[in-house]
Amino acid sequence: MVGKFYGLGIGPGDSGLVTKKSIDILSSIDYVVTPVAKNNSNSIALDICSDFIGKDVKVEKLLFLMSNDKNKLKEQWIKNAEFIKEKLENGNDVAFITLGDPATYSTYMYMLPYLEDYMEVETIPGITSYASIAAKLNIPLMAGNETLGVMPVVKGCENIRKAIKHFDNLVLMKVCRDKENVVKVLEENNLEGKFVLVSKCTTDDENIIKSISELKEFEVPYLSTMIIKKGGFDE
Amino acid sequence: MVGKFYGLGIGPGDSGLVTKKSIDILSSIDYVVTPVAKNNSNSIALDICSDFIGKDVKVEKLLFLMSNDKNKLKEQWIKNAEFIKEKLENGNDVAFITLGDPATYSTYMYMLPYLEDYMEVETIPGITSYASIAAKLNIPLMAGNETLGVMPVVKGCENIRKAIKHFDNLVLMKVCRDKENVVKVLEENNLEGKFVLVSKCTTDDENIIKSISELKEFEVPYLSTMIIKKGGFDE
Repeated sequence: MVGKFYGLGIGPGDSGLVTKKSIDILSSIDYVVTPVAKNNSNSIALDICSDFIGKDVKVEKLLFLMSNDKNKLKEQWIKNAEFIKEKLENGNDVAFITLGDPATYSTYMYMLPYLEDYMEVETIPGITSYASIAAKLNIPLMAGNETLGVMPVVKGCENIRKAIKHFDNLVLMKVCRDKENVVKVLEENNLEGKFVLVSKCTTDDENIIKSISELKEFEVPYLSTMIIKKGGFDE
Repeated sequence: MVGKFYGLGIGPGDSGLVTKKSIDILSSIDYVVTPVAKNNSNSIALDICSDFIGKDVKVEKLLFLMSNDKNKLKEQWIKNAEFIKEKLENGNDVAFITLGDPATYSTYMYMLPYLEDYMEVETIPGITSYASIAAKLNIPLMAGNETLGVMPVVKGCENIRKAIKHFDNLVLMKVCRDKENVVKVLEENNLEGKFVLVSKCTTDDENIIKSISELKEFEVPYLSTMIIKKGGFDE
């Protein structure tokens, strides 16, 4: 019998933010696979949930190199999907673990079209970085009838300049891609005191930045998320 | 010593979607409090996590009547905050449980200003209804550089009409407030086949609606969330 394929969101960094369902699956699954961006590099997702992985579970890192070449990316997805398919066809259940939530900008969703047609798939949602930042700071992401916009920073930040007119609150993912323009957007819109950047949220290396001058000095790491509240934080 | 106040997000309905951290807190806390909208009514949040609540934990329902009168609402928050304060001042730790995520349109955040000034507060994030719907359907909420807008339905739906122009994907909460206008927005924007409404997600009473004609016939319950993907679901 063909095995079952799971996508598990294991949250932003604190192993306490993994769900019961994901813990149960990790304890008894046949294979756990995790994406890595370089050969032999650590998997943050794996570090988060390693305590929950059963003794007899096999763990495999799959290489997903970053690239702007769509054909290269597709080749990798196919190659990694073939690896997973082989395990499934041999009757193994396989869990693909993903940082944060699998529906929120994850590699897992790019893999699915190559896998889901002929097999059983179950996706388990996870805690997003932005929900954990709001919780950490004891602030609402949205209250009353407020609106929230979530988007990645893209070079130039034109998407953010448009969104900020129409939404009460904004979440910016991948701030490291163009910090300079994020700073400009904050200045143009008089948002001093109305934003917070948190990097590596809920981990030991967490950093919280709350002013534009601090942000200018800060070397923004890959896992950094900004929350902007146009109405400020003291509601 | 004054006790600690916790806000726990216990997810959309499936008890497997509660996090390890919330489970640990529920097993050993002194008091669990949960908001209810009517006297003697059930608490869905309590049903979800009742298996995790320790034997010696006291459980209290706090009445939060729905009202458009801001003064009445404020009176209730103060009254309920007083109840919690008394427990905390007697050295008890208290966990306020909330459906979904505490930062996402929750009563918990309205209570905080009345409690946080003089005591220790810790908020634990939870799985949102919209993350669980995307997982259920094995679809991304956002892929690549896509943007997501999240907002509640308000009478007339003017907020949605504006947002739909500027965002790739939209999440509409509280669809029951004005289903007629939600239907109109879908028709005006040719969104047949590009939306899904899920009510009571991950519970036994779950319903999934994928066409405008079905939606017209459907009596939308309180816990209903819609995901709209302007690009459709087959990416």
